[in-house]
Amino acid sequence: MKDGLRVTVWNEGVHDKRDRKVMDIYPEGMGKAIAGYLAEQPGIASVRVAELGDKGQGLTDTILAKTDVMTWWGHCAHDQVTDENAAKVKQRVLEGMGLVVLHSGHFSKVFKSLMGTGCDLKWREIGEKERLWVVDPAHPIAEGLSEYFELPHTEMYGEHFDIPQPDQLVFISWFEGGEVFRSGCCWHRGLGKVFYFRPGHETLPIYRNETVLRVIYNGIRWAAPSGLKKLVRGNVQPLENVNRNG
Amino acid sequence: MKDGLRVTVWNEGVHDKRDRKVMDIYPEGMGKAIAGYLAEQPGIASVRVAELGDKGQGLTDTILAKTDVMTWWGHCAHDQVTDENAAKVKQRVLEGMGLVVLHSGHFSKVFKSLMGTGCDLKWREIGEKERLWVVDPAHPIAEGLSEYFELPHTEMYGEHFDIPQPDQLVFISWFEGGEVFRSGCCWHRGLGKVFYFRPGHETLPIYRNETVLRVIYNGIRWAAPSGLKKLVRGNVQPLENVNRNG
Amino acid sequence: MKDGLRVTVWNEGVHDKRDRKVMDIYPEGMGKAIAGYLAEQPGIASVRVAELGDKGQGLTDTILAKTDVMTWWGHCAHDQVTDENAAKVKQRVLEGMGLVVLHSGHFSKVFKSLMGTGCDLKWREIGEKERLWVVDPAHPIAEGLSEYFELPHTEMYGEHFDIPQPDQLVFISWFEGGEVFRSGCCWHRGLGKVFYFRPGHETLPIYRNETVLRVIYNGIRWAAPSGLKKLVRGNVQPLENVNRNG
Amino acid sequence: MKDGLRVTVWNEGVHDKRDRKVMDIYPEGMGKAIAGYLAEQPGIASVRVAELGDKGQGLTDTILAKTDVMTWWGHCAHDQVTDENAAKVKQRVLEGMGLVVLHSGHFSKVFKSLMGTGCDLKWREIGEKERLWVVDPAHPIAEGLSEYFELPHTEMYGEHFDIPQPDQLVFISWFEGGEVFRSGCCWHRGLGKVFYFRPGHETLPIYRNETVLRVIYNGIRWAAPSGLKKLVRGNVQPLENVNRNG
Repeated sequence: MKDGLRVTVWNEGVHDKRDRKVMDIYPEGMGKAIAGYLAEQPGIASVRVAELGDKGQGLTDTILAKTDVMTWWGHCAHDQVTDENAAKVKQRVLEGMGLVVLHSGHFSKVFKSLMGTGCDLKWREIGEKERLWVVDPAHPIAEGLSEYFELPHTEMYGEHFDIPQPDQLVFISWFEGGEVFRSGCCWHRGLGKVFYFRPGHETLPIYRNETVLRVIYNGIRWAAPSGLKKLVRGNVQPLENVNRNG
Repeated sequence: MKDGLRVTVWNEGVHDKRDRKVMDIYPEGMGKAIAGYLAEQPGIASVRVAELGDKGQGLTDTILAKTDVMTWWGHCAHDQVTDENAAKVKQRVLEGMGLVVLHSGHFSKVFKSLMGTGCDLKWREIGEKERLWVVDPAHPIAEGLSEYFELPHTEMYGEHFDIPQPDQLVFISWFEGGEVFRSGCCWHRGLGKVFYFRPGHETLPIYRNETVLRVIYNGIRWAAPSGLKKLVRGNVQPLENVNRNG
Repeated sequence: MKDGLRVTVWNEGVHDKRDRKVMDIYPEGMGKAIAGYLAEQPGIASVRVAELGDKGQGLTDTILAKTDVMTWWGHCAHDQVTDENAAKVKQRVLEGMGLVVLHSGHFSKVFKSLMGTGCDLKWREIGEKERLWVVDPAHPIAEGLSEYFELPHTEMYGEHFDIPQPDQLVFISWFEGGEVFRSGCCWHRGLGKVFYFRPGHETLPIYRNETVLRVIYNGIRWAAPSGLKKLVRGNVQPLENVNRNG
Repeated sequence: MKDGLRVTVWNEGVHDKRDRKVMDIYPEGMGKAIAGYLAEQPGIASVRVAELGDKGQGLTDTILAKTDVMTWWGHCAHDQVTDENAAKVKQRVLEGMGLVVLHSGHFSKVFKSLMGTGCDLKWREIGEKERLWVVDPAHPIAEGLSEYFELPHTEMYGEHFDIPQPDQLVFISWFEGGEVFRSGCCWHRGLGKVFYFRPGHETLPIYRNETVLRVIYNGIRWAAPSGLKKLVRGNVQPLENVNRNG
């Protein structure tokens, strides 16, 4: 990582092209809003926006091979991502690519297949207040934050969130309407890392919020490829002398 | 569970019908060898053997509905289990059914889709010694055991085992040839529980070993349905008064 | 455990003897209120109340030797428990005794020394509403519950709760005043198990609430001694032939 | 951390001053052997060796205040570290200082009080072979390694190692004599991080091994202060309007 991370912001890019409300908030598209912030941060070598409407759904072998960490936002077109492409992204994660899944990305093919569960949840869209509490204050994803931060108007996501127990739980959200949610969750998968981060919605300017963007950036840094580069599988010879009846 | 657990021992049942070596060890079939032990244990109401060759691959809705915990052994015919049946079993786990995956079941469709990873590993078949150490001595799956137990002749499985970090790691295996393996692994998935237990092989009498059978039984008890019976999902009303701009 | 669990409800027993408000709610003492419920549940062989004011602070070797699971409530007299007695209780947990720590017991010597952290938190006493959400619906401690339950008037505890990451997190509390809290936390320690459960306060009738009592009972069942009975430590002989330069 | 980490290598420094065998291997002292390697690595601003025989046992407020990550090696003089000094180090960890505990440091006052368990284990000193397998290949502490590495002659440590379940388990050791050991274990504690790494012995040149030193370095990087800088505790005001009967 000496020269910094190569980030791909994968953005479904459907709402931002046809819904007036979304276009007002993100005239440049939601992907570019996120990418613009990231491009200015230290340790980031390059940021690319890739979309469902791009060639190869923005998930070509070339793009995947040159991505250290991918962020994923999708909502209304999860089913349009081909099974083959979803499988390729998952495979890249198992081989070491970091993945930061945002908000409604919880229902994407990629996230569900990496989790092994239904990934369902409760939701409500009345613009209520959310307060995200840091419950793992030693975690690098909490770097630079205060012990909580608020989003004044959000779509609510509530428990039970059908995910495996996170390896590390960084944030728990409090919602004005009475629910809680595990909003920042970390897992290792094969050689790769996955961070799920709840905030974000197409009709609210969540990705204009500096703290939200900071957490996404922290998540990218945490999810950066590290650890082993490759592993041996299959039938192997003994490492010690064994004299058996095999 | 007042009247005991209803257990289904799902057995691929291919080797035991055609390979002389396997038939010599398990003339009644591997499934019946396991089921015979279980049927005599306290807290077990009924034990059924179901096989790939049965009607509906032994995975009919009727069987699944009447199973509290299922054990799973497969090896050479993982691909013959239909995607639909694998999905049904997974769904039943998410709804509360316990699942105890044995040995080569690590590569079954059901286990891989519940884990979200490749589930690959190293292996070697020379009949070497395995010693399983208890590393979570407070765990109910270790009930009645000593701090380690040995299997004199086994197929080796070695790390890296491509699974998510277990919620609880009960056993670590030592192999004569120089490898280690996370041999007893627990996860919660939705309303259900999954226990992976390594020992077992078609050409070695592993399921004649009392300690191995005891661990399978302990795993079934641990994986028994408990906790919630159902969950609410989807769009919900606020539980508190919220006066917002929704 | 064939004949059921022997439970000791350890109760500080100071407030209940001198504070009018507490005496009004628990005229029989808080310990007896809890013990009375437990004594009628299946699988419980005996329930004893032990208090700080008893001989040996209610923590004699005889009591400890005959206790399978201990519940612990303390608040204003944590420091009066002798270091020696706290160390004895901790040692019994490491040897297999279950421990269910209630509410303000988070600051007891026993709990702090088993956790290895400060165990501090935020608090507020205005009688606000608490809603406890089940976030691990497969967990046996959630048996018989709905997906959440409410306490209309509680003392608030808020994050950050300075504990090690729980091995299993069962409940997260929502508080009317804006906080969240990890309210049901499980850990293994040596041969023993520890469950921390937040609800409870001396001036509110929390231990008259059936769901709260049910969770305490579930916690006791979960924390029951299981797993190994003993372990070998110290200098050991090789289990395999080793021909080295030792 | 822009300018790099300030590391203190705390070394008991008793064996290295009086035992001929140890002096032959580490004529400069074991602390300096480790420090010399670290001082040349990227991202390290400064490395200091502190010893039990130093003023204030090498644990003065000044040293602690200027230490981002401390490594700890002790063996025969654990009891000589004062309770007050052990408590100060623990407190610094809870406030954010990283701690990398080496080998026989498992029995230090600091480690035991941070773990909350007995930290006992099996051991044997015949110079047998150890092979450390990476079981969490995505972990930054495995950066730059192969899937296993070997130490030809080591003191054996065997399970059960009486520690809390690690938040992340990076290495499992295989020993020639038949044991296994959780050799690389990570925990968060308060605002700080703790890494336990098994290899190392006073009479074997373990800290001359490049891979061992690399892992210590990786552990220091992982344990570097990150996350929150401070937390609020105690009695707090509501963040939301609450109208209750307090």
